[in-house]
Amino acid sequence: MAKKNVSTFLLRQRAFLKLYLITLTEQERLYGLRILDLLRNDFKIYGYKPNHSEIYKSLHELMDDGILERYKKPKEGMKLQEVVYYRFKDYEEAQRYKKQLKVELDRCVGLLQKAIKDNYK
Amino acid sequence: MAKKNVSTFLLRQRAFLKLYLITLTEQERLYGLRILDLLRNDFKIYGYKPNHSEIYKSLHELMDDGILERYKKPKEGMKLQEVVYYRFKDYEEAQRYKKQLKVELDRCVGLLQKAIKDNYK
Repeated sequence: MAKKNVSTFLLRQRAFLKLYLITLTEQERLYGLRILDLLRNDFKIYGYKPNHSEIYKSLHELMDDGILERYKKPKEGMKLQEVVYYRFKDYEEAQRYKKQLKVELDRCVGLLQKAIKDNYK
Repeated sequence: MAKKNVSTFLLRQRAFLKLYLITLTEQERLYGLRILDLLRNDFKIYGYKPNHSEIYKSLHELMDDGILERYKKPKEGMKLQEVVYYRFKDYEEAQRYKKQLKVELDRCVGLLQKAIKDNYK
C-alpha cells in the first residue's frame, strides 16, 4: 500500500482525501452523507470541490486496505432506520499512513515554494 | 488557454513545467538538450524527476499557445551544426500566464498547509 498514492510530482487527490477521512474517523465525525458536505465546505475557499465519486473511492480504498470498516447503528429515535458509520479496523496502519502523508505534504509544499522562489522576484 | 492547466485540486505538472520554461526563456537559458538535465538537477532533492516527454509536451504547448517560438543558431565554432533555441513570440501572454500561475501556486500551498494544520497536531 505504501507507494500507491505517492506521485513523484504532487500528491494525488485520493491520498489527500484518505488522510482527511482517517482524521475524521479519529474525531468520530465520519458518517454517511455528511462527508461530502463537510469536505466541500472545508475546501470551498481554496477553489477545490471534491466530488462524490472521488470521496467514496477513497473511503473504499481505506476499507480495501484494511484501515477502516463500516458498521451500522439505528438512527436516533428511529428504530427502523440505520445510519452507516466508519471506525478503525487497523489503527496502527492508519497512523503509519498519516505519518507517510506528512512527509509527502511537506515535500509538496517545498516543491511549490521553490517554484514561487525560482519564478517570481 | 487560460483555464486549460488549472485543476480544482492541485496544479498539473504540465502547468508547473510551462512556468519554468517561460522563466528559463527570460533568463536565456532555454536550449535543446540542456533543459532536461537542468530541471532534473533542480528538483532532485524534492524527489521529482520530470521525464523527457512531459517536458517536450510542455514546450510544444507553449509554442501551440503562441507564447514561445524556436529558432536555430550555428553551434559555436561549428559552422555546420545548429542548436535549437527558444524565444518569446508573445511576451505579454507569457507574463499573463506567469501571473495566473502565481495565484494557482499560492492557492495550492494554502490548500496543502491547511491539510497539515487540519490533520496533524
